[in-house]
Amino acid sequence: ASVFRASEHQHIRYNPLQDEWVLVSAHRMKRPWQGQVEPQHVETVPRHDPLNPLCPGAVRANGEVNPHYDGTFLFDNDFPALQPDAPDPGPSDHPLFRAEAARGVCKVMCFHPWSDVTLPLMSPPEIRAVIDAWASVTEELGAQYPWVQIFENKGAMMGCSNPHPHCQVWASSFLPDIAQREERSQQAYQSQHGEPLLVEYGRQELLRKERLVLTSEHWLVLVPFWAVWPFQTLLLPRRHVRRLPELTPAERDDLASIMKKLLTKYDNLFEMSFPYSMGWHGAPTGSEVGAKWDHWQLHAHYYPPLLRSATVRKFMVGYEMLAQAQRDLTPEQAAERLRALPEVHYQLKAN
Amino acid sequence: ASVFRASEHQHIRYNPLQDEWVLVSAHRMKRPWQGQVEPQHVETVPRHDPLNPLCPGAVRANGEVNPHYDGTFLFDNDFPALQPDAPDPGPSDHPLFRAEAARGVCKVMCFHPWSDVTLPLMSPPEIRAVIDAWASVTEELGAQYPWVQIFENKGAMMGCSNPHPHCQVWASSFLPDIAQREERSQQAYQSQHGEPLLVEYGRQELLRKERLVLTSEHWLVLVPFWAVWPFQTLLLPRRHVRRLPELTPAERDDLASIMKKLLTKYDNLFEMSFPYSMGWHGAPTGSEVGAKWDHWQLHAHYYPPLLRSATVRKFMVGYEMLAQAQRDLTPEQAAERLRALPEVHYQLKAN
Ligand SMILES: O=P(O)(O)O[C@H]1O[C@H](CO)[C@@H](O)[C@H](O)[C@H]1O
Ligand SMILES: O=P(O)(O)O[C@H]1O[C@H](CO)[C@@H](O)[C@H](O)[C@H]1O
Repeated sequence: ASVFRASEHQHIRYNPLQDEWVLVSAHRMKRPWQGQVEPQHVETVPRHDPLNPLCPGAVRANGEVNPHYDGTFLFDNDFPALQPDAPDPGPSDHPLFRAEAARGVCKVMCFHPWSDVTLPLMSPPEIRAVIDAWASVTEELGAQYPWVQIFENKGAMMGCSNPHPHCQVWASSFLPDIAQREERSQQAYQSQHGEPLLVEYGRQELLRKERLVLTSEHWLVLVPFWAVWPFQTLLLPRRHVRRLPELTPAERDDLASIMKKLLTKYDNLFEMSFPYSMGWHGAPTGSEVGAKWDHWQLHAHYYPPLLRSATVRKFMVGYEMLAQAQRDLTPEQAAERLRALPEVHYQLKAN
Repeated sequence: ASVFRASEHQHIRYNPLQDEWVLVSAHRMKRPWQGQVEPQHVETVPRHDPLNPLCPGAVRANGEVNPHYDGTFLFDNDFPALQPDAPDPGPSDHPLFRAEAARGVCKVMCFHPWSDVTLPLMSPPEIRAVIDAWASVTEELGAQYPWVQIFENKGAMMGCSNPHPHCQVWASSFLPDIAQREERSQQAYQSQHGEPLLVEYGRQELLRKERLVLTSEHWLVLVPFWAVWPFQTLLLPRRHVRRLPELTPAERDDLASIMKKLLTKYDNLFEMSFPYSMGWHGAPTGSEVGAKWDHWQLHAHYYPPLLRSATVRKFMVGYEMLAQAQRDLTPEQAAERLRALPEVHYQLKAN
């Protein structure tokens, strides 16, 4: 048998944070692609559209008029999946039919008054304002709810129904599934090894280097060893930080700068506005905010769907839905490609 | 507080088979859709295309020529994610960096010599031949591998790169992630309750009726209580059957008939060839085939992505990728809609 090379030989890798395995089959990148090609949306978005419900001064579905905001703008989602009041489904009559109450709120946060910008095209102070707004909403909703999920769906490919730069915040009375998994894994790691899983993981990646994409004084971005999406990344603070509101002003400024660099690299990869879903995970909040959550390390996941080009995505279907996630290039190859990309946005290059 | 109604009030439901929760927010169907609309592929597929590598007599990527098959046809995937020989990555040097060997085979199975048919348009004896081929390949590959995953990606929306009716078979030296979850859950249920989880579940659904889609002498199709995809279904034998090869001739004929009915309903829902990923799960195989696997019940999952129409799908993005699956109509509403659809295919209706 020959010597193992990750880029040549299929193998499985373990995700210790979410307790999952991924099949890595890098040799599969050699196959020709004959499947669906995504429509490329190159329409120019107008800077201001009075009919777009996310724009300053526009009228929303419920008749409310948006203020003429000039920074970030947070408001209640007009079609929330979670509402503050909902009756309890009551006790279950059989162990295979379990339903429980769910309460919460869903908010939308606009990042900027203009519809024709995205985070990588915003200035560091403008991105810093978004970070401050993320910290505040975590604090505000976290006072009542045990989980505050901040997430951004970017691009039509990710089901995003509005080009205006924005994210969503869904706070819930329950710990969602993936939060529960991360809770279990981080809790177990801490009790076995005496330190937070992701603090040790970040330290190891700084030593091993091959999966690093960006580093700064306070942050690192890497393609995790167990990444599932082709260009998935993990954004981690160097210091042990449990939640967004704990970040110092210097850490927030530095975060704005590293986010701008990462998202610029993403856009530069296929010279297009790169689609993704991203979100923040930190220690649970709510009434147990003071409890022992030291095993948690704040982090953001970026899950971009594209694989080969601006129009060829990775489909997580058949085998992935029924058996196990599978990826077609190694995390190390993905990190190398992202590292090599310029930190100046292709749209901002002097001609 | 008002009385709980599943179709009005958000709640969470537990999936005891895969140990996961789903957020059910049926009131959300009321929101207008402004997001991505899928391209509708209405091109007619030629019955025979000598350049299509899945057709009888065609030349494949590796230069092999397909036989002039007239039933099903099984061959090795020319770009397999799993190969029989791959060196071992060796021991891990850190608990957060775990990789393991993966070996296996990937096959493709054509259902029919014609490219312009799909399972619901095939005759029951032709579908029966597919079922027999599924049973044989499970037996053949199961002699060596602990898991044989049969799955079908149907439609361009599901990443299917070839319109010719076919499925894939990936056999692996490891138990994939979802198989492991189902193993754990069924094992635990059996030891707690003394009978297989899915046998009891099927019995309960027959009593409760509201989630049933189809029943026959030997089979049932239902929208599971914990379904995640809008029109997801679960296909279960009434008898306790661990693996496909155990099915009797009568059960196979009946399966062909109920599959044709289910897939006809799916196509009739939006009057289009309905996309989905589907796959079979049964007791593990390989060297442990004789071991105690009585807690397993054979079943097939159908995961169709469409939500509102032939062109508006459910996006499993942001919240779903970072927190928890979320659905927009109740499983009971989905079952009711599927039940009401005719069992005669819209393309075969007399005009
Ligand atoms: O059918 P193909 O071309 O092999 O590939 C398709 O199914 C595979 C198994 O579900 C996925 O890994 C691929 O992403 C998908 O495009
Ligand atoms: O942004 P929207 O329109 O609320 O909706 C989008 O994000 C939600 C949260 O991830 C998903 O549940 C929807 O399927 C998706 O279309």
